[in-house]
Amino acid sequence: MATPDAKASRAPTVTLKTPKGTRDWSGQDMLMREQVFKMITDVFKKHGGTPLDTPVFELKEILSGKYGEDSKLIYDLQDQGGELCSLRYDLTVPFARWLAMNNIQSVKRYHIAKVYRRDQPAIARGRFREFHQCDFDIAGVYDPMIPDAEVLRIIVEVFEALKLGVTIKLNHRQVLDGMFAVAGVTKDKIRTISSAVDKLDKMPWEDVKKEMVEEKGLAAEVADRIGEFVRHAGTISETLALLNSKPELVANEQVKRGLDEMTLLASYVDAFGISDKVSFDLSLARGLDYYTGLIYEVINLPPKPEEGAISGNKSRKDDPASQVGSIAAGGRYDNLVGMYGKRQIPCVGISFGVDRIFTILEARRQKEGAKQKRDIDVYVMAFGGKEFTGLLTERMSVAQRLWSAGIRAEFSPKVKPKLPQQFKAAEGVPLGVILGQEELAAGQVRLKKLGQAEAKAGDDESSGRDDGKLVSLDELAEEVKKLLL
Amino acid sequence: MATPDAKASRAPTVTLKTPKGTRDWSGQDMLMREQVFKMITDVFKKHGGTPLDTPVFELKEILSGKYGEDSKLIYDLQDQGGELCSLRYDLTVPFARWLAMNNIQSVKRYHIAKVYRRDQPAIARGRFREFHQCDFDIAGVYDPMIPDAEVLRIIVEVFEALKLGVTIKLNHRQVLDGMFAVAGVTKDKIRTISSAVDKLDKMPWEDVKKEMVEEKGLAAEVADRIGEFVRHAGTISETLALLNSKPELVANEQVKRGLDEMTLLASYVDAFGISDKVSFDLSLARGLDYYTGLIYEVINLPPKPEEGAISGNKSRKDDPASQVGSIAAGGRYDNLVGMYGKRQIPCVGISFGVDRIFTILEARRQKEGAKQKRDIDVYVMAFGGKEFTGLLTERMSVAQRLWSAGIRAEFSPKVKPKLPQQFKAAEGVPLGVILGQEELAAGQVRLKKLGQAEAKAGDDESSGRDDGKLVSLDELAEEVKKLLL
Repeated sequence: MATPDAKASRAPTVTLKTPKGTRDWSGQDMLMREQVFKMITDVFKKHGGTPLDTPVFELKEILSGKYGEDSKLIYDLQDQGGELCSLRYDLTVPFARWLAMNNIQSVKRYHIAKVYRRDQPAIARGRFREFHQCDFDIAGVYDPMIPDAEVLRIIVEVFEALKLGVTIKLNHRQVLDGMFAVAGVTKDKIRTISSAVDKLDKMPWEDVKKEMVEEKGLAAEVADRIGEFVRHAGTISETLALLNSKPELVANEQVKRGLDEMTLLASYVDAFGISDKVSFDLSLARGLDYYTGLIYEVINLPPKPEEGAISGNKSRKDDPASQVGSIAAGGRYDNLVGMYGKRQIPCVGISFGVDRIFTILEARRQKEGAKQKRDIDVYVMAFGGKEFTGLLTERMSVAQRLWSAGIRAEFSPKVKPKLPQQFKAAEGVPLGVILGQEELAAGQVRLKKLGQAEAKAGDDESSGRDDGKLVSLDELAEEVKKLLL
Repeated sequence: MATPDAKASRAPTVTLKTPKGTRDWSGQDMLMREQVFKMITDVFKKHGGTPLDTPVFELKEILSGKYGEDSKLIYDLQDQGGELCSLRYDLTVPFARWLAMNNIQSVKRYHIAKVYRRDQPAIARGRFREFHQCDFDIAGVYDPMIPDAEVLRIIVEVFEALKLGVTIKLNHRQVLDGMFAVAGVTKDKIRTISSAVDKLDKMPWEDVKKEMVEEKGLAAEVADRIGEFVRHAGTISETLALLNSKPELVANEQVKRGLDEMTLLASYVDAFGISDKVSFDLSLARGLDYYTGLIYEVINLPPKPEEGAISGNKSRKDDPASQVGSIAAGGRYDNLVGMYGKRQIPCVGISFGVDRIFTILEARRQKEGAKQKRDIDVYVMAFGGKEFTGLLTERMSVAQRLWSAGIRAEFSPKVKPKLPQQFKAAEGVPLGVILGQEELAAGQVRLKKLGQAEAKAGDDESSGRDDGKLVSLDELAEEVKKLLL
């Protein structure tokens, strides 16, 4: 075990901080985090999700070759002899490793944990080097689009539980890639052009076009054809109708495959009662290479009935929702698990950006001026005259009765506390139990509503006078529970 | 974001494993872990505890000089430019850093998280390199022994909640160190002799004496005097009586200070109703240097009424409890926080060895033959004759009704599933909702108890015949909730 060396560590040079881009969680933030995780996992469980937890570090080779250029952001452990390891960068690669390692064919798993990226932190915007991911994925061979639709339903349920209005932007990789091919993009340029298009929510079309033509060497007329296709969003049916009206697109096999899946999805989304929450947005591309089918991104905004209008030259930059950025994102990735194991396991999933969600909820909490909550039910106190002994062991014994009954209770950790000190310490606690020598001799204590509730106590027949109600010790826990209901 | 490179990672050399001494958590293990954490945090909250979470790594200098020889077991992050960091080794040092950094004077905090030690793992005995700690600490200036007694009470409540019989072995650093001084141990040897004495639960007295005399250069007669003192355990009052009967001990100021505190503790432990759970055991020493007062260790065994007998030559090696090892341990450490901040903050705390506790609970679960639990309430299925379409969107729509009502529901992710397949998938789920074309036309479905409950269904008036009860869609969620009660 540990053997601290007081002299060595008393050196005055020790910097009292957490490492760059990391933070502690305590107080209200921590309580909110716990609440949010509870709400989200309750939704996951409603859908048969089971929890997974993996080590914070993986073998370095498991992570290598998975994140392209971003690999430089991976935290490595020092080589202290033995295996080379790195901190996990996301929860998807550990999930794929776990599926392959245990030869699991089918699972709905969720995983809430911290991941690590040596990125430039932007603390004020909630961007950390150690941050949370909260993932739900469905792995296994199912009939097409059924699990995809369930993931969308889960997204809606999560944000309903959190009381946040959202729109889910959808697109399909096959539609997108086929569309690029039809426009005249060669195969080797599809991913890089796709990344440029993905910036349409942050840049006007002109800038995106410039990037494609000047930086990525695309012919201007090809870029224009892309612009015609991608600047469209509407309900699934609306966007489907638009696409089906273009024979050159429908003739493309990839596009056709994607459209068939989106047609199926439209009916499933309808059966799940969430049609009004989704928007088939052809400009959505998502950065990750490994997506193979449906992709989606969630923005914090109630859906606007835009009636499938072509957004024309107006960039989405003006849309206030794009300022917040996406608060959840995901898609179908059918080829990732096969990189580890012998067989492919098709997967579809969602990752909630919980740190961004916390930022939004915290702003709301502050706006609503929510009060600091005390998570204690009863404060046990004592008072008396000149010969007041403090009744410490008596207070302890009463607290013990309450704890044994599952009631959250505290008392002053002083032998002889003063009464005002005790009332101050009890601030925010709903009930007080007051011990006096005489009452105790008769096996009784006073039970009293504290704080705001106190004002009403006078009107309440059962609570009697200002100084509370006399209750026998044996009935105390039961009386407390009645008042807490 | 991530950009996987399929070719690079398809290399056949990737080893599919977690790093040495680490493991994944899933299935029943994970559910048990969640349950245990919930039970423990419920107890912490009853006592006003608030959660803390710190980064998984700290600045290297924060950890250095805290763990003596064991510092070699610390995992360092690779120097990739910027700060030098190490994975946390325990939760106590991050707690002390947090207290000092935020100048917190008083708090009851709990922290459940993984810690990291590059030790030789022993997986079968539940000894990992990544393992959980679960700590509750009370920081602040309080009247003596009041928080110490509350920590003992918390220990008892936690193990009562887990239904594990325990004894808490207590000792006091001042008593122990004073006793060593009276026996003739010089100040510079006190900690090393203390470590030798701590091995009395694993070695016979003769071996401990040999270590003190031959390895640590203690005079044989000094060792013998130590042996006379330390081989004693009993209730607090019994051990106090024994110590008070030895004038040479009582004359020592350090011993006297310790005895005064233990006398206070005896009355507090009594008020908390846990006297029968503690044993004042003079051989308990604890390895950590930073303890300054009360120390304790919890063993998984109901207390034996040994009536304070001197254990004589019989070593505690024969005691079956010592085979399991301690499942929780802690003590008072009044000088640690001062190593970081300007002022000392006295602390007392407990660390639960949750991985060992899991091992014990898992063995019990297997012995009791507990069944795999399915955490789903309702399975939604459909059947029909030759023209059966599968009723997929209808099943989806019914599942959606159940989810919206907070009910955990699943259905087959196939367009046209066969009935036996659906019943198989529903194994372990208590209720089934069965859709048929005709019933649906009348706005109805069949609700049926599945599995074991099915047998009883016949006797139950309300559940009607074998093929379930016809329920209108609008009343379905309510009917399901009634049956789940």
